[in-house]
Amino acid sequence: MSTSDSIAARLSAEGIVLPVPPTPVASYQPYVAMNGMVWVSGQLPLRDGSLVMTGLVGDTVSEADALLCARQCAINILAVLSASVAGDWERLLRVVRLGGFVASTPDFVGQPKIINGASDLIGHVLGDRGTHARAAVGVASLPLGAPVEVEALALITAS
Amino acid sequence: MSTSDSIAARLSAEGIVLPVPPTPVASYQPYVAMNGMVWVSGQLPLRDGSLVMTGLVGDTVSEADALLCARQCAINILAVLSASVAGDWERLLRVVRLGGFVASTPDFVGQPKIINGASDLIGHVLGDRGTHARAAVGVASLPLGAPVEVEALALITAS
Amino acid sequence: MSTSDSIAARLSAEGIVLPVPPTPVASYQPYVAMNGMVWVSGQLPLRDGSLVMTGLVGDTVSEADALLCARQCAINILAVLSASVAGDWERLLRVVRLGGFVASTPDFVGQPKIINGASDLIGHVLGDRGTHARAAVGVASLPLGAPVEVEALALITAS
Repeated sequence: MSTSDSIAARLSAEGIVLPVPPTPVASYQPYVAMNGMVWVSGQLPLRDGSLVMTGLVGDTVSEADALLCARQCAINILAVLSASVAGDWERLLRVVRLGGFVASTPDFVGQPKIINGASDLIGHVLGDRGTHARAAVGVASLPLGAPVEVEALALITAS
Repeated sequence: MSTSDSIAARLSAEGIVLPVPPTPVASYQPYVAMNGMVWVSGQLPLRDGSLVMTGLVGDTVSEADALLCARQCAINILAVLSASVAGDWERLLRVVRLGGFVASTPDFVGQPKIINGASDLIGHVLGDRGTHARAAVGVASLPLGAPVEVEALALITAS
Repeated sequence: MSTSDSIAARLSAEGIVLPVPPTPVASYQPYVAMNGMVWVSGQLPLRDGSLVMTGLVGDTVSEADALLCARQCAINILAVLSASVAGDWERLLRVVRLGGFVASTPDFVGQPKIINGASDLIGHVLGDRGTHARAAVGVASLPLGAPVEVEALALITAS
Protein backbone atom coordinates (compact mmCIF):
# COMPACT_ATOMS: atom_id res chain seq x y z
CA MET A 1 0.00 0.00 0.00
CA SER A 2 1.37 3.44 -0.84
CA THR A 3 2.13 5.95 1.90
CA SER A 4 -0.84 8.01 0.82
CA ASP A 5 -3.16 5.02 0.91
CA SER A 6 -1.85 3.98 4.34
CA ILE A 7 -2.41 7.44 5.75
CA ALA A 8 -5.87 7.67 4.22
CA ALA A 9 -6.72 4.25 5.67
CA ARG A 10 -5.54 5.19 9.15
CA LEU A 11 -7.44 8.48 9.09
CA SER A 12 -10.54 6.61 8.02
CA ALA A 13 -10.07 3.97 10.74
CA GLU A 14 -9.88 6.81 13.29
CA GLY A 15 -13.10 8.26 11.87
CA ILE A 16 -11.30 11.44 10.90
CA VAL A 17 -12.31 13.48 7.89
CA LEU A 18 -9.71 16.22 7.56
CA PRO A 19 -11.42 19.60 7.64
CA VAL A 20 -10.61 22.61 5.54
CA PRO A 21 -7.68 24.11 7.50
CA PRO A 22 -9.00 26.52 10.13
CA THR A 23 -8.74 30.16 9.18
CA PRO A 24 -6.08 31.90 11.26
CA VAL A 25 -7.61 33.96 14.04
CA ALA A 26 -5.37 36.95 13.23
CA SER A 27 -2.78 38.41 10.80
CA TYR A 28 -0.81 35.35 9.77
CA GLN A 29 -0.84 32.35 7.43
CA PRO A 30 -1.98 28.81 8.32
CA TYR A 31 1.44 27.70 7.12
CA VAL A 32 4.51 28.77 5.20
CA ALA A 33 6.20 26.19 2.94
CA MET A 34 9.64 27.05 1.63
CA ASN A 35 13.02 25.38 1.12
CA GLY A 36 11.52 21.96 1.80
CA MET A 37 10.12 22.91 5.19
CA VAL A 38 6.57 23.66 6.34
CA TRP A 39 6.00 25.83 9.37
CA VAL A 40 2.48 25.19 10.65
CA SER A 41 1.01 27.98 12.76
CA GLY A 42 -0.13 27.23 16.29
CA GLN A 43 -3.38 25.31 15.98
CA LEU A 44 -6.22 25.67 18.46
CA PRO A 45 -8.81 22.95 19.17
CA LEU A 46 -11.20 24.45 16.63
CA ARG A 47 -13.89 22.28 15.02
CA ASP A 48 -16.34 23.71 12.51
CA GLY A 49 -15.13 27.18 13.45
CA SER A 50 -15.60 26.90 17.21
CA LEU A 51 -13.37 25.80 20.06
CA VAL A 52 -14.41 22.36 21.30
CA MET A 53 -13.73 23.66 24.81
CA THR A 54 -12.41 26.65 26.74
CA GLY A 55 -10.83 27.07 30.17
CA LEU A 56 -7.81 26.04 32.19
CA VAL A 57 -6.67 22.50 32.89
CA GLY A 58 -6.74 21.99 36.64
CA ASP A 59 -9.72 24.35 36.85
CA THR A 60 -12.75 23.73 34.60
CA VAL A 61 -11.07 21.46 32.06
CA SER A 62 -10.35 17.82 32.94
CA GLU A 63 -7.28 15.96 31.73
CA ALA A 64 -9.44 13.74 29.55
CA ASP A 65 -11.02 16.78 27.91
CA ALA A 66 -7.64 18.45 27.41
CA LEU A 67 -6.38 15.29 25.73
CA LEU A 68 -9.26 15.53 23.26
CA CYS A 69 -8.36 19.19 22.67
CA ALA A 70 -4.78 18.20 21.85
CA ARG A 71 -6.12 15.57 19.47
CA GLN A 72 -8.27 18.20 17.76
CA CYS A 73 -5.19 20.46 17.40
CA ALA A 74 -3.43 17.52 15.72
CA ILE A 75 -6.35 16.96 13.35
CA ASN A 76 -6.04 20.60 12.33
CA ILE A 77 -2.26 20.24 11.92
CA LEU A 78 -2.86 17.24 9.64
CA ALA A 79 -5.38 19.29 7.66
CA VAL A 80 -2.84 22.11 7.21
CA LEU A 81 -0.06 19.65 6.31
CA SER A 82 -2.31 18.00 3.75
CA ALA A 83 -2.99 21.38 2.20
CA SER A 84 0.73 22.19 2.19
CA VAL A 85 1.43 19.15 -0.01
CA ALA A 86 -1.76 19.59 -2.04
CA GLY A 87 -3.13 16.34 -0.65
CA ASP A 88 -0.14 14.28 -1.77
CA TRP A 89 1.10 12.60 1.40
CA GLU A 90 4.02 11.04 -0.51
CA ARG A 91 5.56 14.51 -0.39
CA LEU A 92 5.53 14.63 3.40
CA LEU A 93 8.90 13.37 4.60
CA ARG A 94 8.63 13.89 8.33
CA VAL A 95 7.00 15.89 11.07
CA VAL A 96 10.18 16.89 12.90
CA ARG A 97 8.89 18.96 15.82
CA LEU A 98 5.73 19.75 17.76
CA GLY A 99 5.48 22.64 20.17
CA GLY A 100 2.69 22.10 22.69
CA PHE A 101 1.19 24.63 25.07
CA VAL A 102 -1.27 23.75 27.84
CA ALA A 103 -3.20 26.52 29.61
CA SER A 104 -3.45 25.43 33.21
CA THR A 105 -3.44 26.42 36.81
CA PRO A 106 0.13 26.70 38.20
CA ASP A 107 -0.17 23.43 40.12
CA PHE A 108 -0.78 21.32 37.02
CA VAL A 109 2.31 19.43 35.84
CA GLY A 110 0.85 16.81 33.50
CA GLN A 111 1.56 18.66 30.23
CA PRO A 112 3.34 15.69 28.61
CA LYS A 113 0.32 13.43 28.97
CA ILE A 114 -1.98 16.11 27.51
CA ILE A 115 0.21 16.84 24.49
CA ASN A 116 0.38 13.09 23.86
CA GLY A 117 -3.15 13.57 22.52
CA ALA A 118 -1.50 15.33 19.58
CA SER A 119 1.72 13.29 19.41
CA ASP A 120 -0.05 9.94 19.50
CA LEU A 121 -2.47 10.81 16.71
CA ILE A 122 0.25 12.19 14.46
CA GLY A 123 2.49 9.21 15.16
CA HIS A 124 -0.36 6.78 14.53
CA VAL A 125 -1.63 8.37 11.33
CA LEU A 126 1.75 9.18 9.77
CA GLY A 127 3.72 6.19 11.04
CA ASP A 128 7.51 6.60 10.80
CA ARG A 129 6.96 9.99 9.19
CA GLY A 130 5.18 11.17 12.31
CA THR A 131 7.80 10.51 15.01
CA HIS A 132 8.98 13.89 16.24
CA ALA A 133 10.92 15.97 18.74
CA ARG A 134 8.78 18.04 21.08
CA ALA A 135 8.59 20.75 23.68
CA ALA A 136 5.56 20.87 25.99
CA VAL A 137 4.99 23.64 28.51
CA GLY A 138 2.24 25.04 30.71
CA VAL A 139 1.11 28.59 30.07
CA ALA A 140 -1.07 31.19 31.77
CA SER A 141 -3.64 31.37 28.99
CA LEU A 142 -4.14 30.79 25.29
CA PRO A 143 -5.95 32.54 22.43
CA LEU A 144 -9.76 32.65 22.74
CA GLY A 145 -9.50 30.75 26.03
CA ALA A 146 -8.32 27.50 24.39
CA PRO A 147 -6.89 24.91 26.82
CA VAL A 148 -4.32 23.66 24.29
CA GLU A 149 -2.34 24.99 21.32
CA VAL A 150 0.07 22.97 19.17
CA GLU A 151 2.39 24.14 16.39
CA ALA A 152 4.38 21.92 14.02
CA LEU A 153 7.34 21.83 11.69
CA ALA A 154 7.60 19.30 8.88
CA LEU A 155 9.95 18.48 6.02
CA ILE A 156 8.48 17.98 2.54
CA THR A 157 9.73 17.43 -0.98
CA ALA A 158 9.24 20.01 -3.70
CA SER A 159 6.05 19.65 -5.74
CA MET B 1 11.14 50.13 -7.41
CA SER B 2 13.54 47.54 -5.99
CA THR B 3 12.62 45.47 -2.96
CA SER B 4 15.11 47.41 -0.89
CA ASP B 5 13.71 50.74 -2.03
CA SER B 6 10.15 49.60 -1.34
CA ILE B 7 11.04 48.45 2.14
CA ALA B 8 12.93 51.66 2.86
CA ALA B 9 9.96 53.69 1.61
CA ARG B 10 7.49 51.81 3.77
CA LEU B 11 9.68 52.13 6.86
CA SER B 12 9.96 55.83 6.18
CA ALA B 13 6.19 56.19 5.68
CA GLU B 14 5.71 54.54 9.07
CA GLY B 15 8.16 56.99 10.60
CA ILE B 16 10.47 54.15 11.56
CA VAL B 17 14.23 54.58 11.70
CA LEU B 18 15.64 51.14 12.41
CA PRO B 19 17.75 51.25 15.55
CA VAL B 20 21.04 49.52 16.15
CA PRO B 21 19.84 46.03 17.15
CA PRO B 22 19.27 45.89 20.91
CA THR B 23 22.07 44.24 22.85
CA PRO B 24 20.96 40.85 24.19
CA VAL B 25 20.10 41.04 27.88
CA ALA B 26 22.10 37.86 28.61
CA SER B 27 24.52 35.21 27.20
CA TYR B 28 23.32 34.85 23.63
CA GLN B 29 23.52 36.40 20.17
CA PRO B 30 20.96 38.79 18.64
CA TYR B 31 20.79 36.33 15.75
CA VAL B 32 22.48 33.36 14.16
CA ALA B 33 22.61 33.20 10.35
CA MET B 34 23.62 29.91 8.80
CA ASN B 35 22.58 27.63 5.95
CA GLY B 36 20.31 30.32 4.51
CA MET B 37 18.32 30.78 7.71
CA VAL B 38 18.35 33.51 10.35
CA TRP B 39 17.20 32.75 13.86
CA VAL B 40 16.35 36.03 15.58
CA SER B 41 16.44 35.92 19.37
CA GLY B 42 13.32 36.82 21.32
CA GLN B 43 12.99 40.60 21.10
CA LEU B 44 11.62 42.70 23.94
CA PRO B 45 9.90 46.09 23.47
CA LEU B 46 13.19 47.91 24.06
CA ARG B 47 13.67 51.44 22.68
CA ASP B 48 16.89 53.34 23.27
CA GLY B 49 17.91 50.70 25.78
CA SER B 50 14.76 50.77 27.93
CA LEU B 51 11.50 48.87 27.87
CA VAL B 52 8.71 51.11 26.58
CA MET B 53 6.48 49.53 29.22
CA THR B 54 6.41 46.84 31.92
CA GLY B 55 3.62 44.84 33.52
CA LEU B 56 0.94 42.28 32.71
CA VAL B 57 -1.80 42.66 30.13
CA GLY B 58 -5.11 42.49 31.94
CA ASP B 59 -3.52 44.16 34.96
CA THR B 60 -1.58 47.43 34.47
CA VAL B 61 -1.04 47.16 30.71
CA SER B 62 -3.92 47.94 28.33
CA GLU B 63 -4.46 46.09 25.07
CA ALA B 64 -3.62 49.25 23.13
CA ASP B 65 -0.33 49.59 24.99
CA ALA B 66 0.50 45.90 24.52
CA LEU B 67 -0.11 46.30 20.78
CA LEU B 68 2.48 49.10 20.73
CA CYS B 69 4.88 46.83 22.62
CA ALA B 70 4.44 44.13 19.98
CA ARG B 71 5.08 46.73 17.29
CA GLN B 72 8.29 47.76 19.07
CA CYS B 73 9.38 44.10 19.21
CA ALA B 74 8.81 43.94 15.43
CA ILE B 75 10.88 47.09 14.87
CA ASN B 76 13.70 45.41 16.75
CA ILE B 77 13.25 42.21 14.72
CA LEU B 78 13.50 44.29 11.53
CA ALA B 79 16.65 45.93 12.88
CA VAL B 80 18.20 42.53 13.58
CA LEU B 81 17.13 41.16 10.19
CA SER B 82 18.61 44.20 8.46
CA ALA B 83 21.89 43.58 10.28
CA SER B 84 21.79 39.89 9.31
CA VAL B 85 21.73 40.80 5.60
CA ALA B 86 24.13 43.73 6.06
CA GLY B 87 21.36 46.15 5.11
CA ASP B 88 20.65 44.48 1.77
CA TRP B 89 16.93 43.67 1.90
CA GLU B 90 17.16 41.93 -1.51
CA ARG B 91 18.80 39.08 0.40
CA LEU B 92 15.79 38.60 2.67
CA LEU B 93 13.59 35.94 1.08
CA ARG B 94 10.91 35.51 3.70
CA VAL B 95 10.08 35.81 7.35
CA VAL B 96 8.68 32.30 7.82
CA ARG B 97 7.67 32.24 11.48
CA LEU B 98 7.03 34.52 14.44
CA GLY B 99 6.73 33.23 17.99
CA GLY B 100 4.81 35.66 20.18
CA PHE B 101 4.56 35.65 23.96
CA VAL B 102 2.18 37.90 25.92
CA ALA B 103 2.61 38.26 29.69
CA SER B 104 -0.89 38.49 31.07
CA THR B 105 -3.27 37.65 33.85
CA PRO B 106 -4.77 34.15 33.37
CA ASP B 107 -8.14 35.53 32.27
CA PHE B 108 -6.71 37.36 29.25
CA VAL B 109 -7.30 35.51 25.98
CA GLY B 110 -6.66 38.21 23.35
CA GLN B 111 -3.06 37.20 22.53
CA PRO B 112 -3.70 37.04 18.75
CA LYS B 113 -4.81 40.67 18.59
CA ILE B 114 -1.77 41.78 20.59
CA ILE B 115 0.76 39.88 18.49
CA ASN B 116 -0.86 41.38 15.39
CA GLY B 117 1.03 44.50 16.40
CA ALA B 118 4.15 42.66 15.30
CA SER B 119 2.65 40.63 12.43
CA ASP B 120 0.94 43.61 10.82
CA LEU B 121 4.07 45.76 10.84
CA ILE B 122 6.26 43.01 9.43
CA GLY B 123 3.67 42.16 6.79
CA HIS B 124 3.25 45.82 5.87
CA VAL B 125 6.93 46.69 5.68
CA LEU B 126 8.14 43.49 3.98
CA GLY B 127 5.12 42.82 1.75
CA ASP B 128 4.98 39.26 0.39
CA ARG B 129 8.28 38.54 2.10
CA GLY B 130 6.67 39.27 5.44
CA THR B 131 3.73 36.86 5.45
CA HIS B 132 4.46 34.23 8.08
CA ALA B 133 3.30 31.31 10.20
CA ARG B 134 2.89 32.08 13.88
CA ALA B 135 2.34 30.80 17.38
CA ALA B 136 1.01 33.19 20.02
CA VAL B 137 0.61 32.23 23.66
CA GLY B 138 0.05 33.83 27.04
CA VAL B 139 2.74 33.44 29.68
CA ALA B 140 3.17 34.12 33.38
CA SER B 141 5.91 36.71 32.97
CA LEU B 142 8.66 37.83 30.63
CA PRO B 143 12.26 39.09 30.99
CA LEU B 144 12.63 42.43 32.78
CA GLY B 145 8.86 42.60 33.20
CA ALA B 146 8.16 43.10 29.49
CA PRO B 147 4.52 42.60 28.46
CA VAL B 148 5.47 41.11 25.07
CA GLU B 149 8.33 39.13 23.50
CA VAL B 150 8.56 38.08 19.85
CA GLU B 151 11.11 35.83 18.16
CA ALA B 152 11.49 35.27 14.41
CA LEU B 153 12.87 32.93 11.80
CA ALA B 154 13.68 34.09 8.27
CA LEU B 155 15.17 32.69 5.09
CA ILE B 156 17.94 34.63 3.34
CA THR B 157 20.30 34.18 0.41
CA ALA B 158 24.04 33.86 0.90
CA SER B 159 25.97 37.13 0.82
CA MET C 1 43.77 20.00 19.42
CA SER C 2 40.80 18.74 17.38
CA THR C 3 37.32 20.06 18.02
CA SER C 4 36.34 16.76 19.58
CA ASP C 5 39.38 16.75 21.88
CA SER C 6 38.70 20.36 22.90
CA ILE C 7 35.10 19.60 23.73
CA ALA C 8 36.04 16.47 25.64
CA ALA C 9 38.65 18.45 27.58
CA ARG C 10 36.21 21.21 28.50
CA LEU C 11 33.56 18.71 29.61
CA SER C 12 36.17 17.00 31.74
CA ALA C 13 37.34 20.31 33.23
CA GLU C 14 33.73 21.02 34.21
CA GLY C 15 33.50 17.58 35.81
CA ILE C 16 30.76 16.58 33.40
CA VAL C 17 30.30 13.02 32.24
CA LEU C 18 27.59 13.10 29.62
CA PRO C 19 24.78 10.78 30.64
CA VAL C 20 22.80 8.48 28.41
CA PRO C 21 20.20 10.90 26.99
CA PRO C 22 17.16 11.01 29.26
CA THR C 23 14.23 8.95 28.07
CA PRO C 24 11.40 11.20 26.88
CA VAL C 25 8.64 11.44 29.47
CA ALA C 26 5.95 10.87 26.81
CA SER C 27 5.22 9.98 23.15
CA TYR C 28 8.09 11.66 21.34
CA GLN C 29 11.75 11.24 20.39
CA PRO C 30 14.75 12.71 22.26
CA TYR C 31 15.72 14.24 18.92
CA VAL C 32 15.06 14.17 15.20
CA ALA C 33 18.05 14.60 12.86
CA MET C 34 17.27 15.25 9.21
CA ASN C 35 18.47 17.49 6.40
CA GLY C 36 21.50 18.58 8.41
CA MET C 37 19.47 19.79 11.37
CA VAL C 38 18.87 18.29 14.81
CA TRP C 39 15.76 19.22 16.74
CA VAL C 40 16.36 18.40 20.41
CA SER C 41 13.21 17.90 22.47
CA GLY C 42 12.62 20.08 25.50
CA GLN C 43 14.97 18.84 28.19
CA LEU C 44 14.07 18.84 31.88
CA PRO C 45 16.64 19.01 34.72
CA LEU C 46 16.68 15.24 35.02
CA ARG C 47 19.71 13.49 36.53
CA ASP C 48 19.82 9.71 36.90
CA GLY C 49 16.13 9.59 36.06
CA SER C 50 14.91 12.13 38.62
CA LEU C 51 14.40 15.87 38.57
CA VAL C 52 17.14 17.61 40.55
CA MET C 53 14.45 19.96 41.86
CA THR C 54 10.74 20.82 41.52
CA GLY C 55 8.73 23.97 42.17
CA LEU C 56 8.36 27.55 40.99
CA VAL C 57 11.10 30.17 40.90
CA GLY C 58 10.03 33.01 43.16
CA ASP C 59 8.29 30.49 45.41
CA THR C 60 10.22 27.43 46.68
CA VAL C 61 13.05 27.52 44.11
CA SER C 62 15.86 30.07 44.47
CA GLU C 63 17.55 31.75 41.52
CA ALA C 64 20.77 29.89 42.29
CA ASP C 65 18.95 26.58 42.26
CA ALA C 66 17.13 27.43 39.03
CA LEU C 67 20.47 28.26 37.43
CA LEU C 68 21.70 24.78 38.32
CA CYS C 69 18.51 23.34 36.81
CA ALA C 70 19.18 25.20 33.56
CA ARG C 71 22.72 23.85 33.60
CA GLN C 72 21.40 20.32 34.04
CA CYS C 73 19.03 20.85 31.06
CA ALA C 74 22.08 21.89 29.04
CA ILE C 75 24.02 18.79 30.11
CA ASN C 76 21.11 16.71 28.84
CA ILE C 77 21.02 18.71 25.58
CA LEU C 78 24.74 18.01 25.13
CA ALA C 79 24.10 14.32 25.78
CA VAL C 80 21.36 14.27 23.13
CA LEU C 81 23.51 16.21 20.66
CA SER C 82 26.40 13.81 21.21
CA ALA C 83 24.08 10.91 20.47
CA SER C 84 22.80 12.66 17.35
CA VAL C 85 26.32 12.78 15.89
CA ALA C 86 27.23 9.33 17.26
CA GLY C 87 29.79 10.93 19.57
CA ASP C 88 31.67 12.67 16.76
CA TRP C 89 31.67 16.35 17.76
CA GLU C 90 33.43 17.27 14.48
CA ARG C 91 30.01 16.78 12.89
CA LEU C 92 28.36 19.40 15.09
CA LEU C 93 28.48 22.69 13.19
CA ARG C 94 26.54 24.97 15.47
CA VAL C 95 23.86 25.14 18.11
CA VAL C 96 21.71 27.82 16.46
CA ARG C 97 18.87 28.30 18.94
CA LEU C 98 17.85 27.56 22.50
CA GLY C 99 14.29 27.93 23.74
CA GLY C 100 14.17 28.38 27.51
CA PHE C 101 11.15 28.15 29.78
CA VAL C 102 11.19 29.10 33.46
CA ALA C 103 8.27 28.11 35.71
CA SER C 104 7.83 30.99 38.11
CA THR C 105 5.47 33.15 40.06
CA PRO C 106 4.10 36.02 37.93
CA ASP C 107 6.31 38.60 39.66
CA PHE C 108 9.55 36.91 38.63
CA VAL C 109 11.25 38.62 35.68
CA GLY C 110 14.81 37.25 35.83
CA GLN C 111 14.37 34.54 33.17
CA PRO C 112 17.43 35.64 31.16
CA LYS C 113 19.78 35.14 34.09
CA ILE C 114 18.33 31.68 34.78
CA ILE C 115 18.56 30.46 31.20
CA ASN C 116 22.18 31.67 31.15
CA GLY C 117 22.83 28.54 33.19
CA ALA C 118 22.19 26.65 29.94
CA SER C 119 23.61 29.19 27.49
CA ASP C 120 26.86 29.67 29.38
CA LEU C 121 27.59 25.96 29.65
CA ILE C 122 26.83 25.30 25.98
CA GLY C 123 28.90 28.32 24.92
CA HIS C 124 31.77 27.29 27.18
CA VAL C 125 31.85 23.63 26.17
CA LEU C 126 31.23 24.08 22.44
CA GLY C 127 33.11 27.35 21.92
CA ASP C 128 32.24 29.13 18.66
CA ARG C 129 29.93 26.27 17.77
CA GLY C 130 27.89 26.99 20.87
CA THR C 131 26.97 30.65 20.37
CA HIS C 132 23.24 30.77 19.72
CA ALA C 133 20.05 32.77 19.33
CA ARG C 134 17.57 32.36 22.15
CA ALA C 135 14.09 32.97 23.46
CA ALA C 136 13.51 32.84 27.22
CA VAL C 137 10.07 33.16 28.79
CA GLY C 138 8.33 32.58 32.10
CA VAL C 139 5.55 30.00 32.23
CA ALA C 140 2.87 28.89 34.65
CA SER C 141 4.24 25.39 35.12
CA LEU C 142 6.35 22.72 33.46
CA PRO C 143 6.22 18.92 33.09
CA LEU C 144 6.59 16.95 36.34
CA GLY C 145 6.92 20.23 38.25
CA ALA C 146 10.32 21.10 36.75
CA PRO C 147 11.44 24.71 37.30
CA VAL C 148 13.20 24.90 33.90
CA GLU C 149 12.90 23.36 30.43
CA VAL C 150 15.24 24.03 27.51
CA GLU C 151 14.96 22.88 23.90
CA ALA C 152 17.63 23.23 21.20
CA LEU C 153 18.21 23.30 17.47
CA ALA C 154 21.60 22.51 15.95
CA LEU C 155 23.15 22.14 12.52
CA ILE C 156 25.24 19.06 11.77
CA THR C 157 27.00 17.49 8.79
CA ALA C 158 25.87 14.19 7.33
CA SER C 159 27.50 11.09 8.80
